[in-house]
Amino acid sequence: AAVEAALADGPLAGRHVVVTSGPTHEPIDPVRYIANRSSGAQGTAIAAALVALGARVSFVTGPASVPPPPGVEVVSVETARQMRDAVMAALPADAGVFAAAVADWRVANAADRKMKKDGSGTPPALEFAENPDILAEISGLTEGRPALVVGFAAETDNVVAHATAKRARKGCDWILANDVSEGTGIMGGSENEVTLISDAGAETWPRMGKDAVARQLAQRIAEALA
Amino acid sequence: AAVEAALADGPLAGRHVVVTSGPTHEPIDPVRYIANRSSGAQGTAIAAALVALGARVSFVTGPASVPPPPGVEVVSVETARQMRDAVMAALPADAGVFAAAVADWRVANAADRKMKKDGSGTPPALEFAENPDILAEISGLTEGRPALVVGFAAETDNVVAHATAKRARKGCDWILANDVSEGTGIMGGSENEVTLISDAGAETWPRMGKDAVARQLAQRIAEALA
Repeated sequence: AAVEAALADGPLAGRHVVVTSGPTHEPIDPVRYIANRSSGAQGTAIAAALVALGARVSFVTGPASVPPPPGVEVVSVETARQMRDAVMAALPADAGVFAAAVADWRVANAADRKMKKDGSGTPPALEFAENPDILAEISGLTEGRPALVVGFAAETDNVVAHATAKRARKGCDWILANDVSEGTGIMGGSENEVTLISDAGAETWPRMGKDAVARQLAQRIAEALA
Repeated sequence: AAVEAALADGPLAGRHVVVTSGPTHEPIDPVRYIANRSSGAQGTAIAAALVALGARVSFVTGPASVPPPPGVEVVSVETARQMRDAVMAALPADAGVFAAAVADWRVANAADRKMKKDGSGTPPALEFAENPDILAEISGLTEGRPALVVGFAAETDNVVAHATAKRARKGCDWILANDVSEGTGIMGGSENEVTLISDAGAETWPRMGKDAVARQLAQRIAEALA
């Protein structure tokens, strides 16, 4: 009860935040899929940090390799389209934090049966379709848009330039950008080094644990919603 | 010491078996890859059962979701090509059990940098190349072929017919075939229902735990090598 009282007293008490996390999996056929290297660690840490500040968190997660944090409302999805629908269903919210690594494309001609090698040496042609852009869609809502929309940019080069352009293109309020190129150890690792892109410009945070990044972001969200 | 003595006395004492397990991951770019739903559970159980009968096991595993069993020599790989090289390096062996779900194709034009949406709505074209066929290559070795080569067939329809054709095409001695179609709960699940295809025909085993399938297969391998 003491803990609940503390939570209820947190700076985000009474606030609802939607957090997406993890990768999406896009089926090719019943056994194959396209995935990405997101572990869900950063999104999970952010959700936990928001709960710790008193927020009610709807946690929409793809097939992550880390378990969801305690105290959130978990919605488990696999594909980008399922994630989009789950986010829309979770609204209204005061803020949205879109930390999931959503596949840009799905396989348009996914097969009901396992695809076979036919001996020709030529693989079956895969046709791709662009997935819904959840961050852009939520950012562009004319009704029910969360007051604060936070996106992520996982870049392998020109991090700030790419992330600044992404913020403008998506219409979100903040972008948390990081460098996931090989050698940084960030994708799947325990640390992160991020730059927060906002109206105020680009603010690079020192390299720190993903938990510390999460607490700092949650604190900033609390200040922005105050 | 008692345990070691028991192992050394097992029917596979002094035998070397190469076991492949798990999925392979085929990179698209630094963050995306093509995967499959193999958990590695069946291959891991087989390796453990072979160790229990006294075999020395080289365990070549893709990025599985279950840990390798105790007592094996683990070689961790990601792609089909790495798996092929690791299997060749592990030979000679008395038997090879190729339980991994190896990707048939890799992305021929995998990118060094994260691929971007370019605003055209058209995804970057992926070109595919056929991966090495590890089972066929080992089955066809004129020198150093294991005396017993066991392949697997994960099918979603016409299981016995497809698996019988696969055995002939690959040139392996046995195929352990199963039905991984949706609804069976086999892919990623704890049970399996297999049919052993050999010179003697098709022998369907009752549905049982993957551990029990593994023990039965290990026993049959011990009999075949005796």
